[in-house]
Amino acid sequence: MNDLLLRACRGEAVERLPVWIMRQAGRYLPEYREIRRRVDFLTLCKTPDLAAEVTVQPVDRLGVDAAILFADILLPLEAMGMELVFTPGDGPTFPQPLRRREDVAELVRADVEETLGYVFAAMRQVRRRLDGRVPVLGFGGTPWTLAAYAVEGGGSKQFGHLLAWSYRDPEGLAALLDKVADVSVDYLAGQAAAGAQALQLFDTWGGLLDAERWRSLARPPLLRVIEGVRRAAPGVPLIYYVNGGGHLLDATAELPVEVLSVDWRQPLAEVRRRVGPGRALQGNLDPGALLGPVDEIARRTEAMLLAGAGGPHVANLGHGIFKETPPEHAQAFVTAVQETSARLIAEGRLPQPAAERA
Amino acid sequence: MNDLLLRACRGEAVERLPVWIMRQAGRYLPEYREIRRRVDFLTLCKTPDLAAEVTVQPVDRLGVDAAILFADILLPLEAMGMELVFTPGDGPTFPQPLRRREDVAELVRADVEETLGYVFAAMRQVRRRLDGRVPVLGFGGTPWTLAAYAVEGGGSKQFGHLLAWSYRDPEGLAALLDKVADVSVDYLAGQAAAGAQALQLFDTWGGLLDAERWRSLARPPLLRVIEGVRRAAPGVPLIYYVNGGGHLLDATAELPVEVLSVDWRQPLAEVRRRVGPGRALQGNLDPGALLGPVDEIARRTEAMLLAGAGGPHVANLGHGIFKETPPEHAQAFVTAVQETSARLIAEGRLPQPAAERA
Repeated sequence: MNDLLLRACRGEAVERLPVWIMRQAGRYLPEYREIRRRVDFLTLCKTPDLAAEVTVQPVDRLGVDAAILFADILLPLEAMGMELVFTPGDGPTFPQPLRRREDVAELVRADVEETLGYVFAAMRQVRRRLDGRVPVLGFGGTPWTLAAYAVEGGGSKQFGHLLAWSYRDPEGLAALLDKVADVSVDYLAGQAAAGAQALQLFDTWGGLLDAERWRSLARPPLLRVIEGVRRAAPGVPLIYYVNGGGHLLDATAELPVEVLSVDWRQPLAEVRRRVGPGRALQGNLDPGALLGPVDEIARRTEAMLLAGAGGPHVANLGHGIFKETPPEHAQAFVTAVQETSARLIAEGRLPQPAAERA
Repeated sequence: MNDLLLRACRGEAVERLPVWIMRQAGRYLPEYREIRRRVDFLTLCKTPDLAAEVTVQPVDRLGVDAAILFADILLPLEAMGMELVFTPGDGPTFPQPLRRREDVAELVRADVEETLGYVFAAMRQVRRRLDGRVPVLGFGGTPWTLAAYAVEGGGSKQFGHLLAWSYRDPEGLAALLDKVADVSVDYLAGQAAAGAQALQLFDTWGGLLDAERWRSLARPPLLRVIEGVRRAAPGVPLIYYVNGGGHLLDATAELPVEVLSVDWRQPLAEVRRRVGPGRALQGNLDPGALLGPVDEIARRTEAMLLAGAGGPHVANLGHGIFKETPPEHAQAFVTAVQETSARLIAEGRLPQPAAERA
């Protein structure tokens, strides 16, 4: 069994770096688009057979070192009673967003087995289908990011409703965040129980906040999630990703998670210097680079591997792969990581823990 | 005449800090919405009487220390031959975006007097109407940001077309950027000739790039603009604003501009420490804070003023004001800057150059 990802998360020696790609099960793959021609996005999420099938596609095609379950971060909000609509082109919307303290009562403390059981069923299927070939990741949004969608009613440029609430009534918003956190714990623990071997937390909108406000608004419910999942699923590594959050590094580096997933705009070598050798980093090639020439991809990937030296590293992009990416370019990235990191490790240029002890 | 803004830009002593608000002529003002009920956005931009009227509105209502001409950063691209469409709700779009090197030839080296004369006419009217009450700012987008819209065809979440081009054919994209830069020089110099007393450069999408790529892609055409404007309009202070560009500070701090306008997510005290006492800073209250209670606005504004201490400071938000902002809250911000900074300067807590020399 390929357990490179799990070893890297735990800070153990590897013979080459593990690699996977955020949004690797998605629209850039013709075999994914083929399935989407038959079913819409939400149906795909809710049909375990199909969700498992698209989850495994990039493992089959690209030989990545981990699968990540196909799902959407907004599913738990739907489970909590919010009507969720996916409009082609417009993305997800909640026609009845939550805007004030009184609205929080409308959120149901969902029974996740009942409302999100299809996710767990898909996870169990993925584990069976992969049969140990590579580990499987589960994932969820952070409470702040889920609340951003719930309050705004969808994506937004400025998140004016969310920010207004955060300044007007931080306690009321905290009640919403805590409620989302509690269901998130059950949801993530349920994924682990169904077979997820690591869990990634996506803080897509954490970067909207300055560091002081991130600490006071986003961090407490996030810690609630982390601590809850630790209790329910001890030993499952946690990965935290924040989009556009370079200014938050001092704060996010303190999170009790195994892996920090780094945005493509942060210089990886600087992040390594600031967080030290003990923390696994994930990332962070610019997803735009996969739109460029293949030899450039190899060159930039090698530079990225060297920038991450000095501690455990899970190679990945610094953001989700673009739907316009040619699959051969994704392949070039995966192959470059696998071959180049093996060479660099053999050459002693990416020192591993065992080598250091020798 | 109130020349606080110009003195702050030049690093001279002030008795209180100047304050203005990004997007201060805009939808949060009922008197602006009243005019927009009669004319659409582009018509407003192109009717000097009306553009001048909305430019002066926030000076009349709020008593800000500068006006900024009402216009849109995309107008020069329209002048260069790109069809520009504003769809209500959707924002600006270019139905025929530029996607490859051959497309660059379609851009016309516009005669700005002929194609953008309405902007200069509005500027002259604003100067007449204000009659020296406060200085007037002109502005433009940086070449990178204008190119982002021209290539993508509008706003975008990921700017996949732009990034693809930048990796595939950086020289071709550089040709586009240079062409945009040359027209930008004429456009900004034309605004100065028509009466603009300072010029702000908006790099709305510069933050998409990591520092290395910002230096190689966005910086050269930006320097071309800065140097061209210097030659054509010597002595007019330049202000540079980049959105979400905290990771670029080492690079942007080297720009030969008088003022760095700081995003709300960057701790102003840290920016001051890193750029030193010689550079004027602008900003950077979170625009979301104006959606919160008035006493909070005053408290946060005072903290922001103190964070900027140690060098010249133009008070502002760290991003454009939200359309949902109650005008009284904008007023609370302006008043807090004006009263609190006068007190802090009198108390010696925001040392001024003259005081330092005494």
